[in-house]
Amino acid sequence: MVRVSIIGASGLVGECLIRALLGHPQCTIALLVSDHAAGRKISDLLPPLRGEIDAVTVSASVDEVANASDVVFTAKKGSETFAVVPGLIKAGVKVIDIGGEFRFKDPATYEEWYKEPHQCKNLLADAVYGLPELFKEQIKAAKLVGNPGCYVTSATLALAPLIAEDLIETDGLIIDAYSGLSGAGRQFNQKLSNLFVDIDSNMRAYSVGVHRHTPEIEQSLSFVAKKPVKVTFVPHLVPLDRGILTTAFARPRPGVTSEKLIEGMRRFYSQKEAPFVRVLDTVGEVAINNTVRSNYCDISAQLIERTQQVVISSTLDNLVKGAAGQALQNLNLMCGFDETMGLKGRTL
Amino acid sequence: MVRVSIIGASGLVGECLIRALLGHPQCTIALLVSDHAAGRKISDLLPPLRGEIDAVTVSASVDEVANASDVVFTAKKGSETFAVVPGLIKAGVKVIDIGGEFRFKDPATYEEWYKEPHQCKNLLADAVYGLPELFKEQIKAAKLVGNPGCYVTSATLALAPLIAEDLIETDGLIIDAYSGLSGAGRQFNQKLSNLFVDIDSNMRAYSVGVHRHTPEIEQSLSFVAKKPVKVTFVPHLVPLDRGILTTAFARPRPGVTSEKLIEGMRRFYSQKEAPFVRVLDTVGEVAINNTVRSNYCDISAQLIERTQQVVISSTLDNLVKGAAGQALQNLNLMCGFDETMGLKGRTL
Amino acid sequence: MVRVSIIGASGLVGECLIRALLGHPQCTIALLVSDHAAGRKISDLLPPLRGEIDAVTVSASVDEVANASDVVFTAKKGSETFAVVPGLIKAGVKVIDIGGEFRFKDPATYEEWYKEPHQCKNLLADAVYGLPELFKEQIKAAKLVGNPGCYVTSATLALAPLIAEDLIETDGLIIDAYSGLSGAGRQFNQKLSNLFVDIDSNMRAYSVGVHRHTPEIEQSLSFVAKKPVKVTFVPHLVPLDRGILTTAFARPRPGVTSEKLIEGMRRFYSQKEAPFVRVLDTVGEVAINNTVRSNYCDISAQLIERTQQVVISSTLDNLVKGAAGQALQNLNLMCGFDETMGLKGRTL
Amino acid sequence: MVRVSIIGASGLVGECLIRALLGHPQCTIALLVSDHAAGRKISDLLPPLRGEIDAVTVSASVDEVANASDVVFTAKKGSETFAVVPGLIKAGVKVIDIGGEFRFKDPATYEEWYKEPHQCKNLLADAVYGLPELFKEQIKAAKLVGNPGCYVTSATLALAPLIAEDLIETDGLIIDAYSGLSGAGRQFNQKLSNLFVDIDSNMRAYSVGVHRHTPEIEQSLSFVAKKPVKVTFVPHLVPLDRGILTTAFARPRPGVTSEKLIEGMRRFYSQKEAPFVRVLDTVGEVAINNTVRSNYCDISAQLIERTQQVVISSTLDNLVKGAAGQALQNLNLMCGFDETMGLKGRTL
Repeated sequence: MVRVSIIGASGLVGECLIRALLGHPQCTIALLVSDHAAGRKISDLLPPLRGEIDAVTVSASVDEVANASDVVFTAKKGSETFAVVPGLIKAGVKVIDIGGEFRFKDPATYEEWYKEPHQCKNLLADAVYGLPELFKEQIKAAKLVGNPGCYVTSATLALAPLIAEDLIETDGLIIDAYSGLSGAGRQFNQKLSNLFVDIDSNMRAYSVGVHRHTPEIEQSLSFVAKKPVKVTFVPHLVPLDRGILTTAFARPRPGVTSEKLIEGMRRFYSQKEAPFVRVLDTVGEVAINNTVRSNYCDISAQLIERTQQVVISSTLDNLVKGAAGQALQNLNLMCGFDETMGLKGRTL
Repeated sequence: MVRVSIIGASGLVGECLIRALLGHPQCTIALLVSDHAAGRKISDLLPPLRGEIDAVTVSASVDEVANASDVVFTAKKGSETFAVVPGLIKAGVKVIDIGGEFRFKDPATYEEWYKEPHQCKNLLADAVYGLPELFKEQIKAAKLVGNPGCYVTSATLALAPLIAEDLIETDGLIIDAYSGLSGAGRQFNQKLSNLFVDIDSNMRAYSVGVHRHTPEIEQSLSFVAKKPVKVTFVPHLVPLDRGILTTAFARPRPGVTSEKLIEGMRRFYSQKEAPFVRVLDTVGEVAINNTVRSNYCDISAQLIERTQQVVISSTLDNLVKGAAGQALQNLNLMCGFDETMGLKGRTL
Repeated sequence: MVRVSIIGASGLVGECLIRALLGHPQCTIALLVSDHAAGRKISDLLPPLRGEIDAVTVSASVDEVANASDVVFTAKKGSETFAVVPGLIKAGVKVIDIGGEFRFKDPATYEEWYKEPHQCKNLLADAVYGLPELFKEQIKAAKLVGNPGCYVTSATLALAPLIAEDLIETDGLIIDAYSGLSGAGRQFNQKLSNLFVDIDSNMRAYSVGVHRHTPEIEQSLSFVAKKPVKVTFVPHLVPLDRGILTTAFARPRPGVTSEKLIEGMRRFYSQKEAPFVRVLDTVGEVAINNTVRSNYCDISAQLIERTQQVVISSTLDNLVKGAAGQALQNLNLMCGFDETMGLKGRTL
Repeated sequence: MVRVSIIGASGLVGECLIRALLGHPQCTIALLVSDHAAGRKISDLLPPLRGEIDAVTVSASVDEVANASDVVFTAKKGSETFAVVPGLIKAGVKVIDIGGEFRFKDPATYEEWYKEPHQCKNLLADAVYGLPELFKEQIKAAKLVGNPGCYVTSATLALAPLIAEDLIETDGLIIDAYSGLSGAGRQFNQKLSNLFVDIDSNMRAYSVGVHRHTPEIEQSLSFVAKKPVKVTFVPHLVPLDRGILTTAFARPRPGVTSEKLIEGMRRFYSQKEAPFVRVLDTVGEVAINNTVRSNYCDISAQLIERTQQVVISSTLDNLVKGAAGQALQNLNLMCGFDETMGLKGRTL
């Protein structure tokens, strides 16, 4: 059994990670680290887990975590993550970081968009971007994985095949995305302007032009396009607990049809052996409800002939394929398990 | 007092029209016509109106309606509308049609998108498109007004000023829009795929490339641009009762900045004397909750410099500024009242 | 015109009060007092009011408020209310207090349930409980009105007629009530356990046995029963913005039928000339949506014969009939206006 | 592997059953029977299951189902169920009926509340009521199980221990219950008065005094009390997809305290070895979100001393512990598996 610890266990992603691990046949939960809540039963912090797990959260040194664990999920931010990852890696523990710290090849990008210095630049060369649909082989060999952002996963899985198959132009890409509130975490939910009475029955754009997932989408799509790609990314809040819907727009390459778009998506993911991407026949079938609590990402595309615009739709659960489920998928690959273990036939 | 009748009084828009008229100081409700529910108290059909109005719905001939009314709202579809409007107009009654029948200058456009013959082509020359922010003087003189679609109002009020002020390119316009369920009416809500359990916690695109509001948006923007404009319009369902959020994308004209976009919007609506359009400083402030149940449309825009894309946001209540409120605004103009009478200081 | 000021203008109730006053033909807004937000445009604090009102919130002494106002709504809590009301009353200004400070005849009840000393005991003898359906004549003559709690209004309007008409036993009364989140105000919404992700798709009881509205319900029903009445009151949170649904249970007096319950309710409110209480034929028709944003309270009752239990249902909008609308109704009565002025034919 | 078929596979409960079976280590899905949708891929009918299962729904005779199956879930109503169950039982197949047909010991009760003749009276003697917390040993030996109603499970699991431990009086029991819309199934959701726009932001009571779950609750509690028990049961609709919250009221037996109530609940379920009932310390902790998508039922109780009323709270997911999860729990018992197999460490 692989011993797995979570640093930052008491948040929304933590709950989903614990649930994922509890049902995984080859993993056992080692330490649940939560400095601010140490000593409390995790099921008191996360009441849906009552009866499922008896563990108590702990405050533990990097060495203690390393000794107890084969794999560690780090679900903290910035300097708190930088403080623990080097020691874990040095001790030979595999690390999957849920935050943004190890997603960028170029630390300057992190520093520009996250507004803080990158404190582990020497680890970046060996860090692998944890999007299995693009980097499966690298992930299998990785010691340190940067787990992708939720919006990024949704947008990249929809656009990558169309770029790779040369079906859309790579300039002028527009990504309009809509996320439920769990995507933002508890801190965000606590701000005065994000209260229930302000969010329920409401919708609005936010972080227009400055959202941190922008450069991450661009890094992924540039990798696929083999040239620099820029995107216009506009995230919105919608009154949902869970789920992201992405509607993207691109100009078609000459001769493209709706059928070719769908075929291209299917060919791409068939070659990639991607068990969690489902290509649907029409954009109208891509609906948040069909992916909520699962590790699937549903995608489709359509050419609007009269305006020669390609409309691309993508949906996933921000806490599962957008966070904890994808993290478990990465763990499976890093540990040599079947990629779908603990993720198919289940919801989280 | 102006005597106002409603043909098709028992639907969601009917409720909102009745509420609007009840609080209007210069209007009195004449006949509430509903063939399928004739003889029933309107407050039994629309329980929120209990105690507000004692009227009973009637089945009435065109002559009877004409004799009893100075203004008639028609809230029916297709042939039912075509059957009554000519008689009303001939009798000298002013008509405001909430449906799509009298919105298009060219009947061929109606026939192409609505898939049925236009039966009142001879009335189209004198019909006025009821968007007061663009056609106030024509509405004042009109006998027959085609009240705009809800998505169309949202998109046009946001894009028209930027086109008129030469701030955006008119090709490649993309309009991504999100509507609550009341926009679709009861028939739509009754379909198996539109049940509560399928819509709540859900989002998806629909009618991609074929929604009837597409040519209506194009007609309005072409008028402003003084040349043909085409748009890519993608509507979505969101789990809200009311409200439309539109996020649109356009390429900027040379030298444009975010400040110039906002200034252009403000200058345009200041010249138009538009009391119900509010230009906000930032896109992030445009939120459905701020316009729900009011006749306001909130808009803003921002240039994303790194991709040279303009992001435009607009929100309104689909039943008010998108239907009944705008209809009352048109009535005010057609009857020589203050444009805001019965609409400011109120919610509907 | 009556000059009306609001102390505590920037909250959810403040917004509703401002909206109510803007549409009132005999009221003008004098001062909007908000110490923590003084100097800011009220429409920046409450964006739905943009375009409706230009006023700036102020920090003002009691004397300044008294000089500028004929009527003052106080929407603060505890000591902040006690600090201003005596000066306003002394200056001859009419006061309608939205909080709990002047609702109880016996200050000991306030002190027991609100856990703080009552600082204006000498004003209680002349304070009138602002439930117009029970105390209309006293309110007309009042200088100081304690505006009822939202749950209390819902429960009392449903149970009072059945007690007054001797249709139910007064012991063993059970009041199960469900409120949307706006009832709790912004402070409550900001607590970690009340975030969107914790409330949406959720329901739970709270403050079981200790909610402050308990003694207020008991005071009202004891007045009607002319003897002490105790109630079991269990409030719940539901994922709604607005609205309270109360389901109450009582044992019938001998010979009671469902018909007699409805008749009794109708007779009672007919005698009371209560324009905002609607007695419906069946419990199943009492639905939150029918009263939301209006000043109506809908009620009904039914005898379940096989268990000899009376089921009573009541619904209202917590911000309107449960707060701001009722406050305006009280103002109408105190100022000699028609009770329904600014409240019928409108939503808030 | 146990071969399991579902008759009536394409509804909301069917989806949940399939999901439950897919993750069960000892079950394999045999036939998915759906007469009206025969020949279609189940994952086209239930899109969340795309990628999880390739099966096609079939139209099959009772013999064909019997030959292919060791256990059959019947998720149809009335005569459709009566038409298949005898043949299955005769063929030696174990049957778990999700509907109300085999829940009552006395067919007259079924006929009175379901308004149709009972066509399989001879099977009732051997049918077992499928509430494992009360009838575990009988279920282990059963060939035919009537799976309990969702409201019934919620109410019975909360009240049974207090009755069994002699902590509450058994007369005058009041059960106020609130259910999300999935509890009603698609047919209900399709009625005009149950559309999204009528349910969202709404709450109301329904079927007051006549709901079919009333006699089922009474049968269960009478069994526990060893004497006839009647209950007042009032169900309500709330704008949720999933989940039931029950708030019940009872008078305490002499000397009862809140502590004794909790202790009694814990002792009762400890003796019953009930892995899916969680007794919480306070009523306020019982919240729908904690049980949604799990097979848990959370309960608690509190004595309100000043009125001498016991408040009891209970919550569960109507599709899981209230339907499909409980059905799988029954299958586990009937097949000799661990009661929690496929249900712990998972959500449905």
